[in-house]
Amino acid sequence: MKLSMSRREFIKSTAMAGVAASMMPTSLFGASSSNLQIGVIGTGFRGQGMSRLLLDRPDVDIPVVCDIDDRMIEMVLKVFEKQGRPAPKIYKDGPEDFRNMVAKEDLDGVYIATPWEWHHPMAMAAMENGINVGTEVPAALTVKQCWDLVNTSERTGKLCMIMENVNYRRDIMAVLNMVRQGIFGELIHCQGGYQHDLRHVKFNDGKSPRYGIGVEFGEKGFSEAAWRTQHSVDRNADLYPTHGLGPVSPMLDINRGNRMVHLTSTATQSRGLHKYIVDQGGKDHLNAEVEFKLGDVVTTVIKCANGQTIVLSHDTNSPRPYSLNFRVQGTQGLWMKDNKSIYIEGLSPESHRWESDEGYMKEYDHPLWKRFEDQAVGAGHGGMDFFVVRAFIEACKDDQTPVIDVYDAVSMSVIVPLSEKSIKLNSTSVKIPDFTRGKWQTNQPIFGLNADY
Amino acid sequence: MKLSMSRREFIKSTAMAGVAASMMPTSLFGASSSNLQIGVIGTGFRGQGMSRLLLDRPDVDIPVVCDIDDRMIEMVLKVFEKQGRPAPKIYKDGPEDFRNMVAKEDLDGVYIATPWEWHHPMAMAAMENGINVGTEVPAALTVKQCWDLVNTSERTGKLCMIMENVNYRRDIMAVLNMVRQGIFGELIHCQGGYQHDLRHVKFNDGKSPRYGIGVEFGEKGFSEAAWRTQHSVDRNADLYPTHGLGPVSPMLDINRGNRMVHLTSTATQSRGLHKYIVDQGGKDHLNAEVEFKLGDVVTTVIKCANGQTIVLSHDTNSPRPYSLNFRVQGTQGLWMKDNKSIYIEGLSPESHRWESDEGYMKEYDHPLWKRFEDQAVGAGHGGMDFFVVRAFIEACKDDQTPVIDVYDAVSMSVIVPLSEKSIKLNSTSVKIPDFTRGKWQTNQPIFGLNADY
Repeated sequence: MKLSMSRREFIKSTAMAGVAASMMPTSLFGASSSNLQIGVIGTGFRGQGMSRLLLDRPDVDIPVVCDIDDRMIEMVLKVFEKQGRPAPKIYKDGPEDFRNMVAKEDLDGVYIATPWEWHHPMAMAAMENGINVGTEVPAALTVKQCWDLVNTSERTGKLCMIMENVNYRRDIMAVLNMVRQGIFGELIHCQGGYQHDLRHVKFNDGKSPRYGIGVEFGEKGFSEAAWRTQHSVDRNADLYPTHGLGPVSPMLDINRGNRMVHLTSTATQSRGLHKYIVDQGGKDHLNAEVEFKLGDVVTTVIKCANGQTIVLSHDTNSPRPYSLNFRVQGTQGLWMKDNKSIYIEGLSPESHRWESDEGYMKEYDHPLWKRFEDQAVGAGHGGMDFFVVRAFIEACKDDQTPVIDVYDAVSMSVIVPLSEKSIKLNSTSVKIPDFTRGKWQTNQPIFGLNADY
Repeated sequence: MKLSMSRREFIKSTAMAGVAASMMPTSLFGASSSNLQIGVIGTGFRGQGMSRLLLDRPDVDIPVVCDIDDRMIEMVLKVFEKQGRPAPKIYKDGPEDFRNMVAKEDLDGVYIATPWEWHHPMAMAAMENGINVGTEVPAALTVKQCWDLVNTSERTGKLCMIMENVNYRRDIMAVLNMVRQGIFGELIHCQGGYQHDLRHVKFNDGKSPRYGIGVEFGEKGFSEAAWRTQHSVDRNADLYPTHGLGPVSPMLDINRGNRMVHLTSTATQSRGLHKYIVDQGGKDHLNAEVEFKLGDVVTTVIKCANGQTIVLSHDTNSPRPYSLNFRVQGTQGLWMKDNKSIYIEGLSPESHRWESDEGYMKEYDHPLWKRFEDQAVGAGHGGMDFFVVRAFIEACKDDQTPVIDVYDAVSMSVIVPLSEKSIKLNSTSVKIPDFTRGKWQTNQPIFGLNADY
């Protein structure tokens, strides 16, 4: 427990007492506005883009950023300049300097966009210092780390939101709307996944983010190649389950009326990354010796307490068109993204024939998208980032539960270690922990209920 | 061992001695031609259609049929009449009368199109009497039955071919052709399945094959509803794996250079069949009390010795467009049936964009299809049945291994009991027997190699 009143707590109490925070002497808090004070940890390309969206908001300041890479820090400072915002204080004194930042700075929240393995220690440190957390995906990499986040969020009362932007994709929210209105009947089966040729992300020339140049990674790699690729060397797992699982979780009421009970995962042989190195860099390139544990396609099948199944595909090492593999199926019909089609018995014009999903996407466009369409379009990733940033900020304002909460953060993320375990044990069935400790049975749905968040 | 020389053996020996079989007195054998003598067991709708295709062939006679249903027998006799063929002898004295038929009749082969549970005993009885077998799918329903078929075929030297017609679908054979030519690179992942709304097949009014009338099954049902539906009551399994698994098996060299090692299966809740009964027959209908074990969607993931994965979907209780769920993926690209698309790195015009598969289907049209197109088109199931009948008959002629042999028959069929076991044990990983007893390591591919079969 912190003994001193935080800036935000003070603002809140004075606001309740009818005193405008802006009238307070700024020196008291070191912050000049009643704006939410958000620290950004990780100023790589993702951190830069999200900083821009945060600074787009008149109710947010970023007084401080943290990174260890001078080049990235320089780039994020240009974002501040462009937005006409004061340059932030910078923490850059080694990989543990984030601890000093969350201990010393009076922040309402931190946004974390660092390599995966850092999400957990940074989220923990922030919550322990009374700061709300919005973390990039995945939130954690081990089962123990998942429990850490839950226990710490519960004990400190601080939010730990996972910034799963695909939950806010326009088609996904329209389909969620349809699910809620019973168009599909009772849901029986969902599919999702991450099918994205990342060979150009996992390798580059160590200097430029340009795609398709070079086969370096790790110390010789640049941006994501500097850290992300090593996970493909070390782990055979669904390394990136949240873009597929996040969006179908609210449709299936996961953690709120339903939960995931067990899973199996099966991986193919590993060919794509080695082949890419040899094809692009020649068989004598040093990296041609690297053995990658990650199978090229990893298929995970999840069973839910209410009976449904979820199939997740992880497919990042091979040439293929991008697809998150969505399918949502109920007793009345189904939607499938890859053929942009839908079939609903009694609604679709021809018996047992697909129809284009276009009309449905318009008819069931989610109220949240209708409300914020003008602001969202043009924001990152087709507008999704606008909504996920907004949800985090609005939740921080009142310490209220975000609509994608710590239970969602860990139930999405825990697929990484559990799929790894299943694969290691010849696809054995692995139980999925109930991180809500039984509360899923009474918890009510919170995501995308209306035009609020 | 039969002591007497069979008609076919006699023909063969006399042919080798330069004596035309047609010159032999017909009374010796009770058959008037050198044609292949095929018995048909099961004269329901499937048996009738296949009888027509068999009788289309000038080299085949059907001297005898077997069924227990007078109505179906009458219908198949009309097929003979229409084809200008002599009426066959009929065995119809109860469900075990097929044993008399295979014991007494001098046949080259039997074609079996009875309820699933009869395929195994009928195939066994035929082989034990020196008769080759072509059986409808699946060939067997338990692991022991699978071994029975293998052991009996090996001991008697008789064929046990599974009549998996989808192996001969034109697009499937074109894709197989592409696989063999290395267009996809090394294969890593395949998908298949049986996604077919069978509610109109599983229920009817007990009188007519007309779709969508009535919610009766079992003793009160007609045609497939009389027996097929009971499997949905009794078993939670992938009940019909062969249409999905058969076609991808030769692509993956299953049983010939590769084999399936283990699987997991996960089933959803069971809703569709009960809902259909209530929606169509009212909640007071007697069948509204029936509890169906079969989950509406069953997902099976198979791991192969060479590393690949196969995902099978079984989805027969819900409203949906028909789809066998095919996807064939390698290190160079992939084909997906549901969106009729393909992407091959270096060949497809736009990077990471699907293109229509149409041009590829033409360019890689299989030599067998090119050769027999005129005869196949118009035959059952878009021509597939023509090819599977032809493959069976040609193999019978010389007792040669059919291109879909007993090992294929059981490796496709064993998915039924193994998926059931996995589901029962919370999706536990189940080992898949090696029915070739190690011969898969040296056996060479046989299916669709050229324009022969």
